Amino acid sequence: MRSREETLDPRDWNKFRGLAHQMLDDILTYQQTVRRRPVWRPVPKRVERKFEARLPLKGQSESEVYREFKRFILPYPLGNIHPRFWGWVMGNGTPLGSLSEMLAAGMNPNLGGGNHVANLVERQVIDWLREMLGYSEKASGLLVSGGSMANLTGLAVARNSKAGYDVREKGLSGRRRRMVLYGSAEMHSSLTRAVELLGLGRDALRCIPVDDAYRVDVDKLRTSVESDLKSGKKPICVIGTAGSTNTGSIDPLKELADVASEYNLWFHVDGAFGAFAYLPRKLRHLVKGMECADSIAFDLHKWGYLPFEVGCILVRDAEAHRSAFAMDARYLKHGTRGTAGDPVWFSDYGVQLTRGFRALKVWMALKAYGVRKLSALVQQNVEQASYLAELIRKSDDLELMAPVALNVVCFRFMKSGFDNAQLNSLNEELLVSLQESGIAVLSGTDLQGRYAMRCAITNHRSIRNDFDLLVSEIEREGNLLQEKRAIVSAGSKV
Amino acid sequence: MRSREETLDPRDWNKFRGLAHQMLDDILTYQQTVRRRPVWRPVPKRVERKFEARLPLKGQSESEVYREFKRFILPYPLGNIHPRFWGWVMGNGTPLGSLSEMLAAGMNPNLGGGNHVANLVERQVIDWLREMLGYSEKASGLLVSGGSMANLTGLAVARNSKAGYDVREKGLSGRRRRMVLYGSAEMHSSLTRAVELLGLGRDALRCIPVDDAYRVDVDKLRTSVESDLKSGKKPICVIGTAGSTNTGSIDPLKELADVASEYNLWFHVDGAFGAFAYLPRKLRHLVKGMECADSIAFDLHKWGYLPFEVGCILVRDAEAHRSAFAMDARYLKHGTRGTAGDPVWFSDYGVQLTRGFRALKVWMALKAYGVRKLSALVQQNVEQASYLAELIRKSDDLELMAPVALNVVCFRFMKSGFDNAQLNSLNEELLVSLQESGIAVLSGTDLQGRYAMRCAITNHRSIRNDFDLLVSEIEREGNLLQEKRAIVSAGSKV
Repeated sequence: MRSREETLDPRDWNKFRGLAHQMLDDILTYQQTVRRRPVWRPVPKRVERKFEARLPLKGQSESEVYREFKRFILPYPLGNIHPRFWGWVMGNGTPLGSLSEMLAAGMNPNLGGGNHVANLVERQVIDWLREMLGYSEKASGLLVSGGSMANLTGLAVARNSKAGYDVREKGLSGRRRRMVLYGSAEMHSSLTRAVELLGLGRDALRCIPVDDAYRVDVDKLRTSVESDLKSGKKPICVIGTAGSTNTGSIDPLKELADVASEYNLWFHVDGAFGAFAYLPRKLRHLVKGMECADSIAFDLHKWGYLPFEVGCILVRDAEAHRSAFAMDARYLKHGTRGTAGDPVWFSDYGVQLTRGFRALKVWMALKAYGVRKLSALVQQNVEQASYLAELIRKSDDLELMAPVALNVVCFRFMKSGFDNAQLNSLNEELLVSLQESGIAVLSGTDLQGRYAMRCAITNHRSIRNDFDLLVSEIEREGNLLQEKRAIVSAGSKV
Repeated sequence: MRSREETLDPRDWNKFRGLAHQMLDDILTYQQTVRRRPVWRPVPKRVERKFEARLPLKGQSESEVYREFKRFILPYPLGNIHPRFWGWVMGNGTPLGSLSEMLAAGMNPNLGGGNHVANLVERQVIDWLREMLGYSEKASGLLVSGGSMANLTGLAVARNSKAGYDVREKGLSGRRRRMVLYGSAEMHSSLTRAVELLGLGRDALRCIPVDDAYRVDVDKLRTSVESDLKSGKKPICVIGTAGSTNTGSIDPLKELADVASEYNLWFHVDGAFGAFAYLPRKLRHLVKGMECADSIAFDLHKWGYLPFEVGCILVRDAEAHRSAFAMDARYLKHGTRGTAGDPVWFSDYGVQLTRGFRALKVWMALKAYGVRKLSALVQQNVEQASYLAELIRKSDDLELMAPVALNVVCFRFMKSGFDNAQLNSLNEELLVSLQESGIAVLSGTDLQGRYAMRCAITNHRSIRNDFDLLVSEIEREGNLLQEKRAIVSAGSKV
């Protein structure tokens, strides 16, 4: 006698369908009404404890699981879908994006390779992204989880292309001429991580000082390359930052391209969000020279506003890209007919062999919005940054702490009579108060020993009024905190 | 005068909501009725051409975009959601999984770190997965895109822990003692890729021969380690395969653990799908010794049946894990209060800084099914593999080509009088015919020079009848092809 076969499909499709429509309604309403809620609130202890339960042996009904989701998960988001979230650099996501994810997971193709339409969608998306950024038509590309993977992929190709021998086979041990790379002191930590992972060693990544506008000092870069050459090192790559995390500064990319070409270095651009400055005609000049890059890394889930995760790496020399990753496994034979029948396999261009259908959300977004609307939104965010900078300049209590090159505004609450250490601690507390109030989320950073609040605007939901509110709340709360401290300080002196 | 502010939110939420419910209904029906459709069909040329259009400047309405999706994308899947897809090793995904993805993207948190509930969900999921696989309670873990990233992460920790100096800082160049690693000739290509990426060089990865059951030969492993030690190499890691891609074979993990412990090597287990053999009590002995591993890599989107992408890496020594990746960037200060207020940041445990909410689909699945149901399904797939093997043994036309250790069945169509080359070509054609018929998708591989059809069963929708149909169709089609060839061959002799 055979037992009934199990499956993970719903026992009762109609009932499941009802629940699914409820989920959909809830999540749309959640997005539609986000402005009415606090940006962020801490997870209460009693909720925290809900996530300490042991591994479930027996299942619950899907509707019970969903009830728990609604009660304990949905109310405690990070907040980045909110119009007044400007912390770190994150996109909001879009309602269409969440539906794309549902459709993608419903079809659930594996974009490692093969003859099926999802691969064509990704290929088209790569074509579009290349065109969107004015990059070489012959470049290869790959959608990845985000900027960290994009940078790792780009630097892997750089290492393997410039080593002068078969690094994949021989590795780096025993080589006496050490490969070295160059970036600015403001480059992103993921580049350091990539260099470490690739076995090149953090020591081999030169952090070249920046000018007052936080752009790499090209003269100092040249000096560093020359000095490495003299001491027998092997310079292989220069990294340009388009949109630094701290201040949004953009390196002089054309000049970097010239240095790269002069010394035969790979030129990698980390344009995680800044690459999008290419979109609006008014801003395009800021990233002049990006088109000369050997590889460009950027995110779609930051200034492309799409839900996590999706980033992209483009590589000018498609063959260099492929030969850094292509494998030849017996069970991965690429055919000409049948399901495996497609000459180009994405799994030959990056770390992942199994790859999900992240291309779909990009495809739907680019078709539904068109590049013009994306461009208008990027422009809008940059204007909002200028607007905020203007409010800060006009304020008696606030001080702008770095030039606003793009969409990042660094500033602090300022009171005369406070020394730098006091200001640092006051602003750090102010940032947290603001977050806890639920009014806005900014993040903090350190600019030459001074604590700065950082407002990074990659938000399609923000409107100008949001920045008015931000400034007035910071002024109000800053003065409150400052008075409180003055009282405490006066008290302690008694 | 200020222009109206743009957003990517729907202009008309009610209309959008209507479209969204349509999408949901369609994708549920798509999953519900999958059995009625062919497993796979090639993408027609006219559809291919649809994906050659240039970058859209102006947007279309969301409903138009969706119409194109429905017409040109939805009908041409890879096929792995179908009950008779057994190609390579892929899960089906589940209806609940696609909804989890929608909810995750709707909330759109970034699980790099910080105080928000999604991080607690991932932490709980990691706890559960550890418990599910009988692994150390103190181990750290991270959800990643899949097995390739999990293997890369595990080997990165191995390299950094065993090098004996600060690899992150110093890199590998100039070191005379080359680090070497060991795995079987049947290990997965992603391990080779990881070793290459880490700068260790493919040369440093010893591919130890396997026995007749495709399990690593432990004596030969020992000899290889000894020989490397004698010649001044630095053995750092032994890799055990739990579930080889070709045949599903499982290395003698306990013996490997002993070798690792004897020579002070890191013991990494690649259990991409095979780790799940731990679930059913009846199969648990197969992966005895996995609990001794220093790191275990496995996928949830294979034998966990979840939609792409989700895999996991577990590391016994949490501090070794953290110190292989943790960064100290100014803009990533981990606070004690506010949005950044959480001591443990997932971004300190892997390559990605920005991390999506893939934890949600795992959480919902484990709660809704419970580990018992997952276990029953794994057991069911293994029994289906035995059942298929039995059908093959009974068939006059088919030949089993490797022992069936788990859920992978390698076999071929066999006719006396055909030499090996003829059989290879016949079976290769048979595999494609079967795919093109839409009846089943298997993939092919090479076993010691003989072409094998590979049936890898990680499918929660398959029932026994599907395997009956597979065998009868292969017999029918194989005989047809063979007769056709005989006629052609006879004709050519005239």
